Amino acid sequence: MNRVLEHLGCKYPIVQAPMGWIARSQLASAVSNAGGFGIIETSSGEVENCKAEIEKMADLTDKPFGINLPLLFLKDDSMVNFIVEHGVKFVTTSAGDPSKYIGVLKDAGITVYHAVPNVAGAMKAVAAGVDGLVVEGTEGGGFKGMEEIGLLVLIQAIRKQSDIPIIAAGGIVDGIGMAAVFAAGAEGIQMGTRFVSSKESPVHDNFKNKIIDSDEAWYMDFK
Amino acid sequence: MNRVLEHLGCKYPIVQAPMGWIARSQLASAVSNAGGFGIIETSSGEVENCKAEIEKMADLTDKPFGINLPLLFLKDDSMVNFIVEHGVKFVTTSAGDPSKYIGVLKDAGITVYHAVPNVAGAMKAVAAGVDGLVVEGTEGGGFKGMEEIGLLVLIQAIRKQSDIPIIAAGGIVDGIGMAAVFAAGAEGIQMGTRFVSSKESPVHDNFKNKIIDSDEAWYMDFK
Repeated sequence: MNRVLEHLGCKYPIVQAPMGWIARSQLASAVSNAGGFGIIETSSGEVENCKAEIEKMADLTDKPFGINLPLLFLKDDSMVNFIVEHGVKFVTTSAGDPSKYIGVLKDAGITVYHAVPNVAGAMKAVAAGVDGLVVEGTEGGGFKGMEEIGLLVLIQAIRKQSDIPIIAAGGIVDGIGMAAVFAAGAEGIQMGTRFVSSKESPVHDNFKNKIIDSDEAWYMDFK
Repeated sequence: MNRVLEHLGCKYPIVQAPMGWIARSQLASAVSNAGGFGIIETSSGEVENCKAEIEKMADLTDKPFGINLPLLFLKDDSMVNFIVEHGVKFVTTSAGDPSKYIGVLKDAGITVYHAVPNVAGAMKAVAAGVDGLVVEGTEGGGFKGMEEIGLLVLIQAIRKQSDIPIIAAGGIVDGIGMAAVFAAGAEGIQMGTRFVSSKESPVHDNFKNKIIDSDEAWYMDFK
């Protein structure tokens, strides 16, 4: 048991990243049913579809799962209100000011982790009163800062300033990477690409095979 | 005890990187005398000065130390011959084809590690017959590949293809980072910037203080 696991309420401190369109009920329920922690995305901006996906989760799993709120992309309070009304217990916020909805989320008894790409963002989130951080190294995908800080450097730099619970993200694909970031001070991991390539992921097999066949510099193809 | 420590013959598997001009006898002897492993650079191209620095080491330490040979920058065989004649026991090669001098170095009983920034380079070095690898993540300084692979990803990717001993380099500054890369499969670490900022480093205090005062994104100042 560790602090992240207590917050998540699942069996393994392994979180599935909130990838737009991909992190929906099919994948998230499979991860939660396997003992990990599925997250439903809202970054696609498809508000009604995402709400429907959250409602579907009740039929697909009785295990804990979470929702991601990309703050810059929320058009109004509708999704936040929906989450509060539907008894969601765990939210990750990202891409914006963590203080924006922290009050309403905490008042609803929701555990809130904020995703950060640098130390300044981490300290801002700690000051805002979040329960933990998703620390995203430049190795990962998704919306990140310009600084391109490697995960190992970033975890250590944040750990020197705060004892807040950390979920590490970026370039982790298995238990070896998990052990390494735990040694650096993380208590959980978040994986995105690794779950995109899983059987339960809703993407085309060509996409999954592209990931499986890729080498360590695959992302250069997209630069 | 581990394989890297056996190769180095020192007390701690902590190697000081071969930084041009900086990695000379003053710093390298201090590292070796403290139980780490000092390396004398030759990447400055100052052949006679570097030879003199290597000779000075005999007066400054009775502990093991090594030499770095940046293959692309060697103008002739003079430095290689000098190393063989002076009974050097450990050489890191870098920046070039690891097979170039591996025969003459191994024939002289020298342990050879090659520095690599990607998996292809690592496999080429393994095929060339090196004793180990210095695996350099993009977090580090020095001459590196274009791929910008994070250290943690790179160690794991190489470990999936080879059991060769690994010294990890890039973004490591203390025992926490050391523990993390050991969890990923390394058996030693190499630090550069951390030693540049040490008391025994020959650089100006302004340079040392700039390092000490820097944040996790300091390198952006140089982009």
